[in-house]
Amino acid sequence: MAAAARLVATNGFHATSMADIISESGLSAGAVYRYFRSKEELIGSVAETALSTADEAFADLLADGATPSPEQAVTAMITAITDRIVCDPVTGIDLTRIGMQVWSEALRNPELSARANEVYRRLRGNFAEVVRRRQAAGTLPADADPEQVGAAMLSLVQGFILQRLLVTDTDTGGYLAGMRVLLSGTPVFSRAAD
Amino acid sequence: MAAAARLVATNGFHATSMADIISESGLSAGAVYRYFRSKEELIGSVAETALSTADEAFADLLADGATPSPEQAVTAMITAITDRIVCDPVTGIDLTRIGMQVWSEALRNPELSARANEVYRRLRGNFAEVVRRRQAAGTLPADADPEQVGAAMLSLVQGFILQRLLVTDTDTGGYLAGMRVLLSGTPVFSRAAD
Repeated sequence: MAAAARLVATNGFHATSMADIISESGLSAGAVYRYFRSKEELIGSVAETALSTADEAFADLLADGATPSPEQAVTAMITAITDRIVCDPVTGIDLTRIGMQVWSEALRNPELSARANEVYRRLRGNFAEVVRRRQAAGTLPADADPEQVGAAMLSLVQGFILQRLLVTDTDTGGYLAGMRVLLSGTPVFSRAAD
Repeated sequence: MAAAARLVATNGFHATSMADIISESGLSAGAVYRYFRSKEELIGSVAETALSTADEAFADLLADGATPSPEQAVTAMITAITDRIVCDPVTGIDLTRIGMQVWSEALRNPELSARANEVYRRLRGNFAEVVRRRQAAGTLPADADPEQVGAAMLSLVQGFILQRLLVTDTDTGGYLAGMRVLLSGTPVFSRAAD
């Protein structure tokens, strides 16, 4: 998995073959194929480690019936990414780079496309649970669709991943500060004027 | 440009060569190379047409000293994408697919990386102008950094592009409704309880 992650992060998914991965791993072909039938499966397993990190962060966030705000939930996810996913403890590489490779490859690879769909629905579902709890607590409108609000929250994380890799002056603290202002809504004093 | 867009949208940037593009275009190599030295330049020009659409949408949004809300600005961009960019009038193809190919290729292609950085700073700068006008009107906190708030607004557009292509039940109306709830902030009646 570490060999696959290194090669895909450096050369892209398309340009990486199972033979390259086997060679990079230093294992025999038989040893690798015993566990993984394809590079899609290998990268799926790498993605699974990043997702477990996200799941743990959501579990912490939602423990003991907590009702975190959308801002707190997005902050927790972005913190988990910068603390644990940009330097994965198992592979030592930035798993968000793998994510971006998978996004583009999924456009023409049905197996990756199905996995990406599943992954993003799971993450969106976690954000939707944050929304449901706020609705139950009366701090988000009861008639909002939790999955739709969750989709917008997921975007704030996906956009961070993208901008962190592609926009040179993106820093985590600044991004979170901007997100906080955006999510704080129209200040009360001026709401009547809108 | 249409030939390049078709091939990159279908096969990816990496797997598309200048020779493929020339063949697909039906033009001579000389005719193509007279205008474009590389596939990076070609795709840069295709991206430029999508960006012009975004610039026009921002120009409309900000005409006559208007002070649109962040929600209105994000909605205008997403509407421009679904109306004009997912089916580009010149190439007939979905330019957001090209965008996703460029995102991943930019991780290992310095020329594309420089272009992506420039493009996203320009878009973020447009959103930052929306923030500045709201600050001047007193409807966003004066001490917020416009570029940082603009980065979060840009994420809501980037995440939409990504989810529209990779999450099967993403629909534009639902996404905009969820974004609207997220950006409306904590309702006034419960703010004291937080």
